[in-house]
Amino acid sequence: MEVALVTVGDELLAGDTVNTNAAWLGRELASRGVAVERATTVPDRIDDIAEAISEYHRRYDAVIVTGGLGPTHDDLTMAAVARAFDRDLVESEEALDWLAENGGYSHEDLAEGTAHIPEGARPLHNDVGVAPGCVLGTVYVLPGVPAEMEAMFERVAEEFAGEATHVEFVEADEPESGLLDRFETLRERFDVKVGSYPGGTVRVKLEGEREEVERAADWLRANVTAPEPEE
Amino acid sequence: MEVALVTVGDELLAGDTVNTNAAWLGRELASRGVAVERATTVPDRIDDIAEAISEYHRRYDAVIVTGGLGPTHDDLTMAAVARAFDRDLVESEEALDWLAENGGYSHEDLAEGTAHIPEGARPLHNDVGVAPGCVLGTVYVLPGVPAEMEAMFERVAEEFAGEATHVEFVEADEPESGLLDRFETLRERFDVKVGSYPGGTVRVKLEGEREEVERAADWLRANVTAPEPEE
Repeated sequence: MEVALVTVGDELLAGDTVNTNAAWLGRELASRGVAVERATTVPDRIDDIAEAISEYHRRYDAVIVTGGLGPTHDDLTMAAVARAFDRDLVESEEALDWLAENGGYSHEDLAEGTAHIPEGARPLHNDVGVAPGCVLGTVYVLPGVPAEMEAMFERVAEEFAGEATHVEFVEADEPESGLLDRFETLRERFDVKVGSYPGGTVRVKLEGEREEVERAADWLRANVTAPEPEE
Repeated sequence: MEVALVTVGDELLAGDTVNTNAAWLGRELASRGVAVERATTVPDRIDDIAEAISEYHRRYDAVIVTGGLGPTHDDLTMAAVARAFDRDLVESEEALDWLAENGGYSHEDLAEGTAHIPEGARPLHNDVGVAPGCVLGTVYVLPGVPAEMEAMFERVAEEFAGEATHVEFVEADEPESGLLDRFETLRERFDVKVGSYPGGTVRVKLEGEREEVERAADWLRANVTAPEPEE
């Protein structure tokens, strides 16, 4: 299963907010054996959001969109999803009922547009905030506020399933360029994917079947200089 | 001036690393009046990296690529840039000379491929690490390690210039949906761009010409509930 993420918001592009949602979703999906193939941030403009959703909907098994839900003028994601699928935006009775029962919101309490989702979409309820998300085809629309996004993802997490791999990290206190011979040996002798993350010490990521990763990690630990343990 | 960012790395897609480089570049560019229109993370695969670079090179005034530089098997960015421009990868004499003079590295000290950049590209020296970056056309290739990336960006920062705007943030201790009337008034009465960032209290971002932003911010501060000052 291959997934693309579309994170919506001028605040991400201007660096006012660091994109922790993409990292959180990446970890959640990886732990389910699902690969994120693209993660793209787009501005708060309907055309740009719709274009990214349409392209990734064609190319990947699912698209997760975060951000731009709610009632303010810069919350345009639902309109963009509707445009990408050539649907109308309609008020979801199911979302309104849920908000009334679980949040105590009457229709008049809610800002205009709060419960609007594309026609035919399945609403996703918001356990932490107000604005609902939705699922349309294989496109999942979640809020941008991290706590709301995370709670809503849990409602659909089981729809994301792949072959989970085992991961171990080995840390090496050597220059990355000096480790090249060890990386070569690792890839020759073990059936594992090797990733190398430099910056201070080098973190080496080993990924594959559990037994193979454990053997590779044991071998690597015995063949690199480990960092000094912290006091 | 409109820019796209391409951040390269499986570690970003799997959420092992949070994409602080995109946020840092977003802030730096915004402070120079340059808009980031797309920020896309791609996996460590030549085809995927080359595809993103080609598309954004056609669409935007400049592309900044970070990550995937260096000598390991998963450092594929230079090969991807070469492919996107249909050039060969060649060893840069200028990069080698700089590394010898400034890092004391002889050619034999360097791992194979360290100083390879696409033919005709201008090398960018690495004041913090080893692997050089480059500029080819309007594509800027920088390292992924944040300290290296930031130092290398400073070498080209003056090539990014737009019309800088003034920004002020006003914090409001009210639900976002309750602020809609104030947002409407702001946009009617002042020539400013209004962004709303919910989550706990609401941060309202006002952007435009300095005097106009200051007037709008004064008006807004007088018309929202300010958060309690922290003890």
